[in-house]
Amino acid sequence: MSLADTGPRQDGPARGRPRSEAVERAIIEGVMKLLEDGVPLAELSIERIARTAGVGKATIYRRWSGKEQLLVDVMRAAEPPDPDLPGTSMRDDLVVLLESLRRRGLAGRTSAILHHVRAQMKSSPNLWAAYHDTVILPRRLLGLEVLRRGRENGELRADVDIELLNDIVVGPVLVRTVLRPDSDLPDDLAEQVVDTLLQGLRPVSG
Amino acid sequence: MSLADTGPRQDGPARGRPRSEAVERAIIEGVMKLLEDGVPLAELSIERIARTAGVGKATIYRRWSGKEQLLVDVMRAAEPPDPDLPGTSMRDDLVVLLESLRRRGLAGRTSAILHHVRAQMKSSPNLWAAYHDTVILPRRLLGLEVLRRGRENGELRADVDIELLNDIVVGPVLVRTVLRPDSDLPDDLAEQVVDTLLQGLRPVSG
Repeated sequence: MSLADTGPRQDGPARGRPRSEAVERAIIEGVMKLLEDGVPLAELSIERIARTAGVGKATIYRRWSGKEQLLVDVMRAAEPPDPDLPGTSMRDDLVVLLESLRRRGLAGRTSAILHHVRAQMKSSPNLWAAYHDTVILPRRLLGLEVLRRGRENGELRADVDIELLNDIVVGPVLVRTVLRPDSDLPDDLAEQVVDTLLQGLRPVSG
Repeated sequence: MSLADTGPRQDGPARGRPRSEAVERAIIEGVMKLLEDGVPLAELSIERIARTAGVGKATIYRRWSGKEQLLVDVMRAAEPPDPDLPGTSMRDDLVVLLESLRRRGLAGRTSAILHHVRAQMKSSPNLWAAYHDTVILPRRLLGLEVLRRGRENGELRADVDIELLNDIVVGPVLVRTVLRPDSDLPDDLAEQVVDTLLQGLRPVSG
């Protein structure tokens, strides 16, 4: 344990908490700064992160078991949070979910740090798996839950495969945000997608 | 020009053609072999490719202006070709287009070379742009054309944005093939997606 390590060794009394959170924030911001400066993940050592954040290495190791766990928290801090669903209807919940995907896409285009961290995530299978489990999977489960409620409420026809339907709903937004980063993300994209899907593509008869 | 270069210097008589095609094939297969052996793009020099294919460097430079142009042809040779559309209806054409996307996805999972080349493409902006222009864009234009014909024929309602609709159609298949490489690609995926989209998600009334 380094002499520069000034954090408490055990969970202290209540007054220690805000200080501990400030230390965590400093470390996470230190990593963000390094990534923003273009330091590749492979060169991001705990030692370098500690130096940038002005803490000792042990202060980092007491909070995270390694670089990858720390980077997942950096990712989580950089990503917009999951939205609160209005719960008024499946249609409204889906619009809010897709709008949040659209905003994440916009954030990835305008925030260099987010763009950079996401790109780096993909180059490491372990990091990608951790990112998937903490950011992508919960969002996907939320979508499946909304669709299941819609099927129970009769807002959705009963014969569709919920997993496939989820991919049908998020697909067009992910195509634009992830696969075609120069494509349009208009303000009403979420509503357009959901309402087009609900109505179907055939001309209205009668 | 190297002494080892045995190809004709100018477009020769007709009998020279098959030989020239055999040389091109040997070069393209040489690159594939190197990529299959796990040689990273950065280490794929024209010199090494020439040695593997058993030709001189000049033989390669006479056919391709550089490594990137050659790699795009390698990619094209490795990718399944674009499908012939039946033209019987927009529905049938969309099913064939999506089935071809599904098959490309399956090929990327089972063919180590295709998987490897696609992954490498993404790491080079120039290569990716060339891959986009020769493989992705023509496929996208084909989809837009099918949808436009469907709108003219009255198979599609007239008020939808064709660009958005194309993303709605290909989105779910791309999510599974590109973004979630461990997801299901069942035999009837293309039909399920197209028929679900045509009918819409609301319960059938009456």
